Amino acid sequence: MGTNDLDNLRVVLVAPRNPLNIGAAARAMSNFGVFRLRVVNPYEVAFREARSAVGASGLLAKAKQYDNVAEAVADCRLVVGTTAVGRRELQHRLQPLDKGGRAIRQQLGAGPVALLFGSERFGLSNEELSHCHWLMRIPTREEHGSMNLGQAVAVCLYELVRGRKPAVKVREKKAIAFQKKTTSAKSREIERLTQVLLEVLRESGYVKPRTTAAEEKLRRLVRRMRLDPNDAGVLLGMMRQIAWKLSSYEKNN
Amino acid sequence: MGTNDLDNLRVVLVAPRNPLNIGAAARAMSNFGVFRLRVVNPYEVAFREARSAVGASGLLAKAKQYDNVAEAVADCRLVVGTTAVGRRELQHRLQPLDKGGRAIRQQLGAGPVALLFGSERFGLSNEELSHCHWLMRIPTREEHGSMNLGQAVAVCLYELVRGRKPAVKVREKKAIAFQKKTTSAKSREIERLTQVLLEVLRESGYVKPRTTAAEEKLRRLVRRMRLDPNDAGVLLGMMRQIAWKLSSYEKNN
Repeated sequence: MGTNDLDNLRVVLVAPRNPLNIGAAARAMSNFGVFRLRVVNPYEVAFREARSAVGASGLLAKAKQYDNVAEAVADCRLVVGTTAVGRRELQHRLQPLDKGGRAIRQQLGAGPVALLFGSERFGLSNEELSHCHWLMRIPTREEHGSMNLGQAVAVCLYELVRGRKPAVKVREKKAIAFQKKTTSAKSREIERLTQVLLEVLRESGYVKPRTTAAEEKLRRLVRRMRLDPNDAGVLLGMMRQIAWKLSSYEKNN
Repeated sequence: MGTNDLDNLRVVLVAPRNPLNIGAAARAMSNFGVFRLRVVNPYEVAFREARSAVGASGLLAKAKQYDNVAEAVADCRLVVGTTAVGRRELQHRLQPLDKGGRAIRQQLGAGPVALLFGSERFGLSNEELSHCHWLMRIPTREEHGSMNLGQAVAVCLYELVRGRKPAVKVREKKAIAFQKKTTSAKSREIERLTQVLLEVLRESGYVKPRTTAAEEKLRRLVRRMRLDPNDAGVLLGMMRQIAWKLSSYEKNN
């Protein structure tokens, strides 16, 4: 899926009743780069309040309003409904979210796709569901399946964005590159650290002089840390300072 | 990951200020079968309101309250912070959510894991971040990276639940157990080691007294070592001996 394929996604809220939920859905859309919001038959006061909320994104101002689902999805090639677990009598094919998300991503290159969310109290009615090609559900617990609307939108959009490969941001790329760059320190450096630490341990009386078993144990311990070159250098500096301090006391005694 | 591995997950909300967000986080947790909520230094009114909200699940009533992050994560073997995009000067390894989620799922079989969410306004402070082994971020847009707290919790928990494959549970568990025979030390032990090492570094003159930046740097360094409980104990013993030696010289001078 290319970056701009998300332009083909329409998030459709059917009969939402709570302005906070409408606002939260819009915020999640903006977070994940989905900008086309459609609202079917909202509770008017809620929709007005959500739109006038401080910080309401332009996205919410541009949301389109429809009288019914048929009109809201008229231009879409694929219509997917979301549903909680435990609904009986579903006539539709039901996909788990990750599988469904994959199918949606594949379709987004071809044309508009609608993703429907029902009202907070009743979900999608059978009539509304009948406009869907298939349904998708978030893997919530059977005992508490019903999600908050804003959270459901966030989770579904995350699933769609997650699968995008080319959209990795430059800064994130750098972070990943940075991760890969961090190699382990060279054995030479690790051995230097081991020796200074050994010296400190001897001076402090933790290790008896001339015991080789302790040295081997310490060598393995330090290697298990899998230090990168930078951390190894910092630790070496610390241990040298401690060694210096101990030996300066030793001389004065 | 087995179904019950989620029992090992602790969701930690640091300084949350909005009762609706605390409630939303709790709801998402209940949806996805995660029941251990910890709250650090919440805005008291918000926490009380969230708890008394109608429909507040038992989960919220059982939430534990802590004064600081160190106490909240003391029993955890892995501590992961969440962060929005665009934060500069991050000192930690940063994982995208799906990759980080995989790493967390693998650790959940071995022991308690803490997942930290910062306050709505400021996120996690550098001091709070310094208790984390690494950070994870949800792939939001660079232009609008900051998510609503309740939605961020929902998305992260979905990612953790998504990867559960109950069908291949036993075999997978064995494979994972084989991969990582060694578990990580508890945060409490790692913090103890950090403090003794800090003491040694102060006594040796490596760290100036009363500089907090050095403490945070050291905390991160020690956590990057990913010590197992045994190695952590051995290192603690070493550092204690060095500290004792240094202070005994100090007294004689």
